[in-house]
Amino acid sequence: MKLPTKATLIEVGPRDGFQAEDKLIPNDLKLEILKRLSLTGLSRIQATSFVNPKLMPQMADADELCSRLPNKNRVIYTGLALNLKGIERAYAAGLKHIDISVSASETHSLKNTGVSLKNAMEQIKKMHSLSKNYNMKICAGIQCAFGCVYEGKIPSTKVVGIAKEIINMGIDMFLLADTTGMANPKQVEDLITRIKPITKGLPIILHFHDTRGMGLANVVTALQCGVTHFDTAFGGMGGCPFVVRASGNIATEDTAFLMESIGVETGTDIKKIAECSTLMEKFLGKKLAGKIHRFISPNNIIY
Amino acid sequence: MKLPTKATLIEVGPRDGFQAEDKLIPNDLKLEILKRLSLTGLSRIQATSFVNPKLMPQMADADELCSRLPNKNRVIYTGLALNLKGIERAYAAGLKHIDISVSASETHSLKNTGVSLKNAMEQIKKMHSLSKNYNMKICAGIQCAFGCVYEGKIPSTKVVGIAKEIINMGIDMFLLADTTGMANPKQVEDLITRIKPITKGLPIILHFHDTRGMGLANVVTALQCGVTHFDTAFGGMGGCPFVVRASGNIATEDTAFLMESIGVETGTDIKKIAECSTLMEKFLGKKLAGKIHRFISPNNIIY
Repeated sequence: MKLPTKATLIEVGPRDGFQAEDKLIPNDLKLEILKRLSLTGLSRIQATSFVNPKLMPQMADADELCSRLPNKNRVIYTGLALNLKGIERAYAAGLKHIDISVSASETHSLKNTGVSLKNAMEQIKKMHSLSKNYNMKICAGIQCAFGCVYEGKIPSTKVVGIAKEIINMGIDMFLLADTTGMANPKQVEDLITRIKPITKGLPIILHFHDTRGMGLANVVTALQCGVTHFDTAFGGMGGCPFVVRASGNIATEDTAFLMESIGVETGTDIKKIAECSTLMEKFLGKKLAGKIHRFISPNNIIY
Repeated sequence: MKLPTKATLIEVGPRDGFQAEDKLIPNDLKLEILKRLSLTGLSRIQATSFVNPKLMPQMADADELCSRLPNKNRVIYTGLALNLKGIERAYAAGLKHIDISVSASETHSLKNTGVSLKNAMEQIKKMHSLSKNYNMKICAGIQCAFGCVYEGKIPSTKVVGIAKEIINMGIDMFLLADTTGMANPKQVEDLITRIKPITKGLPIILHFHDTRGMGLANVVTALQCGVTHFDTAFGGMGGCPFVVRASGNIATEDTAFLMESIGVETGTDIKKIAECSTLMEKFLGKKLAGKIHRFISPNNIIY
């Protein structure tokens, strides 16, 4: 089994995880979680999303949150923007890294952002220009790259076409998202093999959901294909508010535990990440989908 | 990704799943589940365990259950036995296939069956002889082959040594069990590579638990190593009553869904298996760990 020696986990729980919860998480608790996450060895955290507060009340505190981000010297904080206004807000809030995306699924694009794919491509180019003007680093990605609950399979030629257009804009990181948890290992291998030649050495980030239980199997295949960057959410929080049954992201501590067990260094403190999950479970009053945080005792991971 | 074209799922939910539940499952419900499972295309079902009814009340109906097994012409039913008495009972109950095992972990052996590994090896040979006398087909396996919560890692040389001794007895199928869900894909590849040369063409069955979320990742790696037989439990039921936090087996329908999605035929009706999980969830009044059964609508799987 040929594997990279190191991999980078990008924590998206504070955005993808929190936004999936109906119960409003107080700003102070979010900051407490961010403070703890920033001390776990994670190098990059997606802190929030600059979306319409009316449509997504959980993210209404994005601006205030970003003004109070802890340990900025240790962690790169990013924010998600869906439109120009989002970029403006992220910049005003002091973020230097922005995450933007289009969906490979027309239907998902309409439901998630209210625009067609064609319009979304025009829009992302404007967002890209504005971000460049602001001197922000840009991670651009494709949602529903592995399928869509509304449209089923998305042809890989379509994904590759969109990828080329996005990469040609000039970006800093490129992301493929399995937004609705439909990827399987064979498909991951196939798509990565097609995408790699056009990424011009850019880091490819994979964003998996564990909706059908294949999340970590996809990670192992991706590692074998040489991918070293993965979006994960502590405790396996997450989902997509506009997709039914799009359950959690792959769990940060589960992914880290898997990687470390097969000799891929993540540089993270699994126990400390798991403690964030336990804290969040207490607040939400429900079990999170991840597994490893249940193995945390006050002092040790129980193997 | 090199994969076999077909794989066989061996349903162990009625044994490994049911025995993990405190709530007694009525004999009639067990038979209803077995009847439904026998019509899903599964070719082999571990129906019960012949253990001390005082230690394991859930399995106290093993003898009666076996006298009423449905669709015997469609399915091979097996039973688990831990000692000579178990073999006698299984034979008297009409079973023609018996599952026996030893544990690679001294501590687990003592806790699970009350005997040392040395004594367990002597005992399994006697059980083997008796089964042969009864003209039963024998599946013999090694528990804790990938590690033990009490002892940690088990050296693969130890597992290979035990495997040789077991295979030399003359058996029909050979099983490696990750009893406490500690296997990782790299270890699976390593152990299978070591075990394959000594199995003399016997089918190797892998028995994974999803305790740390790596169950399906292990399956994909095992398939890539040419393994084609897997123990699974509908709904992801299961555990080991003598091992703390040894959560569910890999879910039958999740494993089948994964396999079909990467082009490995299982010959099973995923929806019908998932319906068994939903039925069991209703009876137990709790969510099972599997994922795919939640995608079953009255008419279709939602992709």
